[in-house]
Amino acid sequence: MSIPRAAIVVTGTEVLGGWVSDRNGPWLAQQLGAVGVDHVSTTVVGDRPEDLWAALDHARASGIDLVVTSGGLGPTEDDLTAAVVADFAGRPMELDEALEGRIWAIIEPLAKRWGHTDPAALRAANRKQALVPVGATVLEPVGTAPGLIVPPADGTSGPTVLVLPGPPRELQPMWRTAIAVDAFQAAIPGAEVRGEQILRVYGLPEAQLADTMREARAAGIELDAIEVTTCAHRGELEIVNRWAPARAAVAESFAAFVAERHGELVFSQDGRTIDELVFDLLRERGWTVATAESCTGGLVAGRLTDRAGSSEVMAGGVVAYADEVKRRALGVDGALLAEHGAVSAPVAQAMAVGALDRIGADVAVATTGIAGPGGGSEAKPVGTIFLAVAARDGASLVRHVRIPGDRFAIRDRTTTAALHLLRRLLRGETDAG
Amino acid sequence: MSIPRAAIVVTGTEVLGGWVSDRNGPWLAQQLGAVGVDHVSTTVVGDRPEDLWAALDHARASGIDLVVTSGGLGPTEDDLTAAVVADFAGRPMELDEALEGRIWAIIEPLAKRWGHTDPAALRAANRKQALVPVGATVLEPVGTAPGLIVPPADGTSGPTVLVLPGPPRELQPMWRTAIAVDAFQAAIPGAEVRGEQILRVYGLPEAQLADTMREARAAGIELDAIEVTTCAHRGELEIVNRWAPARAAVAESFAAFVAERHGELVFSQDGRTIDELVFDLLRERGWTVATAESCTGGLVAGRLTDRAGSSEVMAGGVVAYADEVKRRALGVDGALLAEHGAVSAPVAQAMAVGALDRIGADVAVATTGIAGPGGGSEAKPVGTIFLAVAARDGASLVRHVRIPGDRFAIRDRTTTAALHLLRRLLRGETDAG
Repeated sequence: MSIPRAAIVVTGTEVLGGWVSDRNGPWLAQQLGAVGVDHVSTTVVGDRPEDLWAALDHARASGIDLVVTSGGLGPTEDDLTAAVVADFAGRPMELDEALEGRIWAIIEPLAKRWGHTDPAALRAANRKQALVPVGATVLEPVGTAPGLIVPPADGTSGPTVLVLPGPPRELQPMWRTAIAVDAFQAAIPGAEVRGEQILRVYGLPEAQLADTMREARAAGIELDAIEVTTCAHRGELEIVNRWAPARAAVAESFAAFVAERHGELVFSQDGRTIDELVFDLLRERGWTVATAESCTGGLVAGRLTDRAGSSEVMAGGVVAYADEVKRRALGVDGALLAEHGAVSAPVAQAMAVGALDRIGADVAVATTGIAGPGGGSEAKPVGTIFLAVAARDGASLVRHVRIPGDRFAIRDRTTTAALHLLRRLLRGETDAG
Repeated sequence: MSIPRAAIVVTGTEVLGGWVSDRNGPWLAQQLGAVGVDHVSTTVVGDRPEDLWAALDHARASGIDLVVTSGGLGPTEDDLTAAVVADFAGRPMELDEALEGRIWAIIEPLAKRWGHTDPAALRAANRKQALVPVGATVLEPVGTAPGLIVPPADGTSGPTVLVLPGPPRELQPMWRTAIAVDAFQAAIPGAEVRGEQILRVYGLPEAQLADTMREARAAGIELDAIEVTTCAHRGELEIVNRWAPARAAVAESFAAFVAERHGELVFSQDGRTIDELVFDLLRERGWTVATAESCTGGLVAGRLTDRAGSSEVMAGGVVAYADEVKRRALGVDGALLAEHGAVSAPVAQAMAVGALDRIGADVAVATTGIAGPGGGSEAKPVGTIFLAVAARDGASLVRHVRIPGDRFAIRDRTTTAALHLLRRLLRGETDAG
């Protein structure tokens, strides 16, 4: 049996116009891969019914088995997805009175809280959201809008359409509900849930990864029997392997081959990100961390405080953008700055040591460099970065890296480099012994 | 004459799979609006030629006048856009020898720098990129890949295809070149370059903006004659007005109506962002700024150092995540922390004053709050934020806000709130007089 094929259709004039970035398409793409469906395209259309219809019609003409839509399920006139999909599937709409009651129970208290004062308008909105295509499966609202699974009308052909709401916090739980429903599984016969493993690599040029894949093939690993996606992300490489159940051994051999070939550069095989690894290592040691940042201007600290619970390990930090602040707030010796310049290994090290002391933490990480576009020189071009990590127990590491790209990329990748250096020290490496 | 219609087709398996976010679709959507074209859809497909073909074919069937593609112009076998578009347009490919020479002049020095050692492979890649559809207009490479404008073959109908490279830093300049080319303008007859104005509003609920638009209509402003897009972004509202030349007066009346109705809340009418306004105000005064951050953990400092030239105004900051760091690195009185708690107006103010002193700046902005998901209480639920700004000359402002959303949204919108409070002080407001 061939692999079922799917398309994603994202609706919304703001998304189409580039005013709002689409989080649903990428997320749904990942989910489709995981359930073993071949994802063919993602199309964004505005709120015009004819454009949504055209996208659905194209999917039918292309022999697509499953279309997943996001958005257009709200209470206003613009929200037309359910009606267009019903029409497309050849199914009339009818009022689901029980659903109308359940939606009312959700929106009435909300309306009161918002001070909504037009009960007739509210009732009309309520009724609109409870109109469903005859024969569709209703997915209970996560917010206020129900989702739908709409198969083609009996005797007709075409894709089954899974209709999901636009807000990611509603779409994501509803997707998880939908994939267990019979009407969904009936649309993708023969799909096999895929295994997935993510290998994360740091410090390897992308071109060398291509060589590794060639070598793996030459060594007899049937790479074409699994799905391998490689992608550069924030200065790291991600290798995502997915496999049908029968091909698990191929994926395992390939992961072992990559790990053998690139050793320590493969820093994660269990899905954890560098942020998670650093957090876990700090927690294992019971250590707190401090930051001392020049070129990254607070972004390393921002990253260390991204996740819930970061107060367990993050003490604080200093953003020392001006040289005067490096002296005043981190105690960096003026003579060191004069002799080596602010962008140098000794200053990075002095910043880390200063943060240990001034913030009061067990380990500190420092960044100093030239993010550009100005400020570069022949000796220290844009992208020249010095990183240092120092621990209260005396361990320390200093590194000089050259990071390509524009100001945004250089700052972002420097935060990644800082986390990797921190990880090395937390695993016991030290320059100073 | 009706408005020409356009579709965007983004190619790339990593983009389709959700591994890499697409920056080109949103950017091109904005540009299509600006040149007066009706943008109907954006479709993402992988690197399979049949899927790209299907997307082009759908555009032809839908009567689209212009398709803009991004990606698939590289030197490798996967990069098939030019060949598929040529085939679609009914135009054979031929080698452009002069172009081959110009590309060689670009890639040869690059290959040397990368230590590329296979001259035959390099020559083959070079030749591939110089194959162009007969009758197409070549757009000179910005990186190594040329772009193309490919009209349908004589005697056939279908869209003109503008073929652009995937990297945004190549695509964007090439777009600007392309729109001035005759072959491009010939594809969109009757398109009129639109006027555009962005109004930025802070502190207005989105629902009230809907009321304002209703009132503007009731006051006789023909809103349907222009294009108005409203969008919530990082805690602000953006109102983007676009108009055909004949409708400029409508747009002007509407902008005046919004400004009259919402007064000071409309903080920008000339396109400048809050980040730019704060930067400009600091520069006008010749002031430097410092940050003192708890819940935002460095993100305000990160935002103040985003742009080139930020060292002119940014001194530095302290991330005081732990209470001990608020005392130690900012000099916040322990008694104040004990009496009011870290999330309070007095502590926010003390943090700002501490940063002024410890960092040495003319003005300082402080954030403290509960970003969640844990840590909330009945009195101070998740989203409770206190902000303070203090200047060396004694001026100061303190604000308590409640920010909805998840941890990411709360932290992000708090940075916006901090910049707005900073702007108010820089414009002369003060609580303390």
